[in-house]
Amino acid sequence: MKKTILIHATVITVNDKNEVIHDGAVAFEGDKITYVGPTPEDLTDAGYDEVIDQKGDFILPGLINTHGHAGMSLLRGYADDLPLQQWLEEKMWPLEAQFTADSVKWGTQLSLIEMIRTGTTTFVDMYDHMDEVAKAVEASGMRARLCRGMIGLCSEEERQTKLADATAFAKEWHNQADGRITVMMAPHAPYTCSPEFITQIIEKADELSLPLHIHMSETAWEVGQNEKDYGLRPVAHLEKLGMFNRPTLVAHAVHLTDEEIDILAKYKVRVSHNVVSNLKLASGVAPVPKMLAKGVSVSLGTDSSASNNNLNLFEELKLAAILHKGVNNDPVAVPAEEALRMATRYGADGVFQSDTLGSIEVGKQADLIVLDSHQAHFHPAHEPISHVVYAANGRDVKDTIVAGKFLMRNHKLLTIDEERAIYEANRMFQKLKR
Amino acid sequence: MKKTILIHATVITVNDKNEVIHDGAVAFEGDKITYVGPTPEDLTDAGYDEVIDQKGDFILPGLINTHGHAGMSLLRGYADDLPLQQWLEEKMWPLEAQFTADSVKWGTQLSLIEMIRTGTTTFVDMYDHMDEVAKAVEASGMRARLCRGMIGLCSEEERQTKLADATAFAKEWHNQADGRITVMMAPHAPYTCSPEFITQIIEKADELSLPLHIHMSETAWEVGQNEKDYGLRPVAHLEKLGMFNRPTLVAHAVHLTDEEIDILAKYKVRVSHNVVSNLKLASGVAPVPKMLAKGVSVSLGTDSSASNNNLNLFEELKLAAILHKGVNNDPVAVPAEEALRMATRYGADGVFQSDTLGSIEVGKQADLIVLDSHQAHFHPAHEPISHVVYAANGRDVKDTIVAGKFLMRNHKLLTIDEERAIYEANRMFQKLKR
Repeated sequence: MKKTILIHATVITVNDKNEVIHDGAVAFEGDKITYVGPTPEDLTDAGYDEVIDQKGDFILPGLINTHGHAGMSLLRGYADDLPLQQWLEEKMWPLEAQFTADSVKWGTQLSLIEMIRTGTTTFVDMYDHMDEVAKAVEASGMRARLCRGMIGLCSEEERQTKLADATAFAKEWHNQADGRITVMMAPHAPYTCSPEFITQIIEKADELSLPLHIHMSETAWEVGQNEKDYGLRPVAHLEKLGMFNRPTLVAHAVHLTDEEIDILAKYKVRVSHNVVSNLKLASGVAPVPKMLAKGVSVSLGTDSSASNNNLNLFEELKLAAILHKGVNNDPVAVPAEEALRMATRYGADGVFQSDTLGSIEVGKQADLIVLDSHQAHFHPAHEPISHVVYAANGRDVKDTIVAGKFLMRNHKLLTIDEERAIYEANRMFQKLKR
Repeated sequence: MKKTILIHATVITVNDKNEVIHDGAVAFEGDKITYVGPTPEDLTDAGYDEVIDQKGDFILPGLINTHGHAGMSLLRGYADDLPLQQWLEEKMWPLEAQFTADSVKWGTQLSLIEMIRTGTTTFVDMYDHMDEVAKAVEASGMRARLCRGMIGLCSEEERQTKLADATAFAKEWHNQADGRITVMMAPHAPYTCSPEFITQIIEKADELSLPLHIHMSETAWEVGQNEKDYGLRPVAHLEKLGMFNRPTLVAHAVHLTDEEIDILAKYKVRVSHNVVSNLKLASGVAPVPKMLAKGVSVSLGTDSSASNNNLNLFEELKLAAILHKGVNNDPVAVPAEEALRMATRYGADGVFQSDTLGSIEVGKQADLIVLDSHQAHFHPAHEPISHVVYAANGRDVKDTIVAGKFLMRNHKLLTIDEERAIYEANRMFQKLKR
């Protein structure tokens, strides 16, 4: 197996001690990290196949995007600035209804390009035509936790077809692509799935030993609807259905009471905070400092390009660090170090892989990103974590490495043909009746 | 004079009709725009010295950053995540007290590099050692509205020295560098300047026919302090002192009552909205939708790198468009087109140069930026204004043109030595006792 070492770097490990190693090195053999520490003085007999001098650049764990719908990049910029229900019902759903496997394939390619370019190495995806997404992930070299999202607003027959589809997808793709692809079971949301349907999906997840992923409490409307329909707010509703007895990742969690946060903490429910999307769609601001204080693992998600409108997780990273200060009148809310953990370690929790992802440590997967530090906005050169959280942007990422393989090197994509993807995505978009 | 034409571009004019010209062209001769329209079919006899094919790239008016302290980039990342008063009194002020002309010179160079790289063509600066700033602006080719910030918390003798300094600076630099440098008079804030001192500064601005610039109502503390000291909130206080009888640009304006917004509208006071800084310092969220609805011209400012921590105005552009939706529960607050006006036309208002800056129109200054549209996050290719506001980031800017001169071309800086600036800024920072 190829042995590589990156030397003379500022290594931001995001380990338990939050260590930053100046003039540090990271080595990996195959897909695993084998060394993290100071740059060795002599590498003559160390047997590395490749030694890369980073000249002070920042090395970080790859970022983890814990909620999105990659195929929807095909609808980027379509019908912004509309009220939520009108946007969904009149704009998104009619176009998504026309989506074919090819639409999802090329929309997903756009998303993969964006994520690789801006330093995301693992992402969660909940959508349809998931075979196309899995094939694209496999070919791109990315890592992903995928799920066939199931909306229950249809006939019983269609619901059962969706569940069968999700089950087949899980059986075919879980732990494939050298373990880079894993799967979850995903009822879309409490307001789009009946209790019976959610129960069936939980049972299937139990049978397959898979975690669950769901949209929850994104809007105030949806919380009110849940109370009307079931006499309970969404958290108690899902608790009652037994969902939280299985490992669960919920997206959004904007509208929560203190008691609901206690329930999420008790069951170790993971939360994906989609800060940009929640602002753009006017959903509100999630109580992130409260959740973190109560020990809930809160990671970051972009949601889709239709409500963001990009997949540059560095935007979520900075906004998670500054927004909660501003709206809670608390200048020490979500410090830079904690925001960075949300984008990495807590992201690893969010995809239920904290043993192998989320920090730069020996034995973990070599999912690494390198940021070009030779730029004015990273100087004066001190406090690298502050610079990465508050001053960086995704385009500072020059190298993206997943499982020890370069997917981008010196800003050049190595596994995806960007020009073709742009061409085909435009062709697919033009086919849609608007 | 050199005649240049940029052809085959998507020209986002930000003119009164908000026109976007597909396969458009922009020509300029010397520092002025001479043509905006479709790409001419035949340029053989048009007499252009240079014809540049943009291949579908986006051309926009250069962005205008209406509040900052460029020299403070030297303190980027120093002491984040502290309560405001502790940050100011224990961290910022002791280091700024050690600043020399050279500190400001090299801190400003970092800022100029960042702004040129991310598409800002005009900026407002309020600081000390302003001769250094003016010289750096002159040499860089940038456009700026500069002011010597006057903090009155010192002896009467020192106050008069500051006023004399500001006056001399105005006389020496206003309308210099081919008109690229203009000046304002700037009492720092109502809580750092006595009414007498503010009055003297207003009188001097009147004498020199210059606008005024001041920090106002940034924090709730400062508004309370003003009421305690003078029995009035800051807006009424400054109105009473006669400040708003002169053209005035106020920075922040976070804590305002509806009546105060009416007063700002009545006097046509310009507001610089510093959305990132206000969040990071936990100052709060300015009532931007209300101000815009009442006809107040609200532009965007980064504030300094010490509280941001970069000068990438594309972050303010996107955040201005999404934050007010999220916190006001209104998905149509500050649409993309309005956010873009804030970064351009309203910025031109903010620097009192709306006759020559802020949109791409014949006769206006050729302050233009070009964004590389051949990237996944700008596709599918439609709704260019949405893409620029919601999907772009500052690093998409490939060319920055001020007064008809390229300051950056194909991402290469043409007027500043970035390596030297980074080296010297680090040297200056290391000299400071921390």
